[in-house]
Amino acid sequence: MTKAIVCAVAAALSVATLAHAESMQISANGSRPSAKGPDANFTGSVVVDPLYAASADTHNSGGLVSFEPGARSAWHSHPAGQTLIIVSGTGWIQEDGGAKHTVKPGDVIWTPPGLRHWHGATSSNGVSHIAITNVKDGKNVEWQEKVSDAQYLD
Amino acid sequence: MTKAIVCAVAAALSVATLAHAESMQISANGSRPSAKGPDANFTGSVVVDPLYAASADTHNSGGLVSFEPGARSAWHSHPAGQTLIIVSGTGWIQEDGGAKHTVKPGDVIWTPPGLRHWHGATSSNGVSHIAITNVKDGKNVEWQEKVSDAQYLD
Repeated sequence: MTKAIVCAVAAALSVATLAHAESMQISANGSRPSAKGPDANFTGSVVVDPLYAASADTHNSGGLVSFEPGARSAWHSHPAGQTLIIVSGTGWIQEDGGAKHTVKPGDVIWTPPGLRHWHGATSSNGVSHIAITNVKDGKNVEWQEKVSDAQYLD
Repeated sequence: MTKAIVCAVAAALSVATLAHAESMQISANGSRPSAKGPDANFTGSVVVDPLYAASADTHNSGGLVSFEPGARSAWHSHPAGQTLIIVSGTGWIQEDGGAKHTVKPGDVIWTPPGLRHWHGATSSNGVSHIAITNVKDGKNVEWQEKVSDAQYLD
């Protein structure tokens, strides 16, 4: 009797899991509202279009981030690292103590866990990139202070 | 003495790890050669541009996949799932037993682990998508038979 109940529950769970997990999920463009990069963490106009959320299967989230000319992130680090894929425009990216690098469409940047850095547009051109941000213990970013104009233009 | 050696080795490893892991890695567009999608797994001309590899930090790989009109993958599944971000053109995607869906730039598709499906261009238009393919036990795809013309056009 107990075994029968266990089997029935297991069968019900199995069906539920199959019904949920077995289908594709198509998320249409336009169904995920854009967000504005908050003033506390960005300088200038920055638009974040969410692409996909992290899940039990996928240990990172994806977003398309678009910076107007002159716009950039604050200094920050990612506890589990981040991959950027430049999609359009021209951007700058710099790690603390390193040179400022210019990045263009098709360039891919890996920022390892804990590395203090910033990224954004150049002073003359906007940039957009897909950010694939790894998650560790539910966290994916540690924000720090803003990038001053002097640091940005250096 | 043994302890001193262990500490010296640990210190050396630590420095090596820091030197390697602490810097950004910028992979320039043009530095990652395109590959042709192999005939065994694809119908028509398919170009795969690798973006980033899976690593200890990032449990998926990223690639830009471009299909000419009429080109498509074989039937396949992903042991740990896959996210597609449509970048350009118009594509078709279908899970086994389901309807064929048309997908366009900005659409994002999640294919759960183990789901048999195919994706590619429509018969009239090419498509390109970024594929973010999760890895489990070193595997990220299980290839099956090709999609027949009848199945593709159904």
